[in-house]
Amino acid sequence: MPKNQYVSTAVIRRMPRYYRFLGELLERGVTRISSKELAALMNLTASQIRQDLNCFGGFGQQGFGYHVALLHEEIRKILGLDQGFRAILIGVGNLGRAFVNHVDFTGSGFDLVGLFDKNPALIGKKISGLTVQDADEISAFCAAHTVDVAVLCVPSEAAQQTANGLIDCGVTAFWNFTQYDIKVEHPEAVVESVHLADGLMALCYQVNDARRSSSSAEK
Amino acid sequence: MPKNQYVSTAVIRRMPRYYRFLGELLERGVTRISSKELAALMNLTASQIRQDLNCFGGFGQQGFGYHVALLHEEIRKILGLDQGFRAILIGVGNLGRAFVNHVDFTGSGFDLVGLFDKNPALIGKKISGLTVQDADEISAFCAAHTVDVAVLCVPSEAAQQTANGLIDCGVTAFWNFTQYDIKVEHPEAVVESVHLADGLMALCYQVNDARRSSSSAEK
Repeated sequence: MPKNQYVSTAVIRRMPRYYRFLGELLERGVTRISSKELAALMNLTASQIRQDLNCFGGFGQQGFGYHVALLHEEIRKILGLDQGFRAILIGVGNLGRAFVNHVDFTGSGFDLVGLFDKNPALIGKKISGLTVQDADEISAFCAAHTVDVAVLCVPSEAAQQTANGLIDCGVTAFWNFTQYDIKVEHPEAVVESVHLADGLMALCYQVNDARRSSSSAEK
Repeated sequence: MPKNQYVSTAVIRRMPRYYRFLGELLERGVTRISSKELAALMNLTASQIRQDLNCFGGFGQQGFGYHVALLHEEIRKILGLDQGFRAILIGVGNLGRAFVNHVDFTGSGFDLVGLFDKNPALIGKKISGLTVQDADEISAFCAAHTVDVAVLCVPSEAAQQTANGLIDCGVTAFWNFTQYDIKVEHPEAVVESVHLADGLMALCYQVNDARRSSSSAEK
């Protein structure tokens, strides 16, 4: 349970990384870690780690540090990974297939329960144990099963229309990989848009900046 | 040219989104826009927009707003999209192929000049006009061509070793899609790691949070 009702987006966005590093420590058999050691590992400062975790109540003990398994479990609960949410993915081209194969949905809080596409060449194919269904069947599927989240890997021009159809089916959360910023009007609406090209442009800035700094240091 | 030497990462990360929205306005023939209108479109506040752009010198005119084409061009320069950096992509499985097909490298500041894989079944195949080359040829390729950035779509367990090999070839910037946080020791090192599952976990938190808020509002 959060200590504060409001936790900033920046803190939330760091939580999965904590969870990932703690999971790796657990796998290596590490049972406790100081904020200083965790900071070194994660390339953060110890004070930042303490501040972040204090948003949810702390969890560290003076002179002992963090109990890795307990903290891992607490973050799992904070993120809601124990809620068993259910996801469907729409658009199983290269991008959709890549996510089905590469992204650990279950470990990230979601059971992937359905794949949909409108391409007859893909309908009926099996990917990671799931059979691709006709996109026309989405509303029947949503009526028969609980669906919490839709992963959108459709072409950008189909993004808003696909989202509208899903909202009519009661799906209000979207992981949107199209280039289009979909609009969702609903009190429980959640949209996480991933613009891959934005990351590439931010990288471009950093490359440029690193070279500027390095050439000015040489002068 | 930045007005301030130091611009926060958060501001930099918003720049590609400004660039994208301004590009869409240009395409629609919009020539000028007020910070208020731009804010409504981007779901930001006008004051945030003014603050962000002031980091680089402003660009707005009292009573006129922003000149869309000029601001678009300025942000292009700020991000360094005009530098003609060159990228190679390593690992052309589903994920790598998805990026080649879906991500606008050229529009994001990079010419994609080489694709590499170690799978003999993929070597020699053509994807988006580029022939997949043997990963053993990377160092020869880097010796013969300028390569500024490597996109890593290799399995996580091969991430660090692949990065080390590339650093030896003089490549110091990485767009890392493996689950492994690679370490790069170099004064010009730039690593942009994209952990897709982290985004999914952040989405999980938001879904959980939206339902908590909505159920507490009902009480």
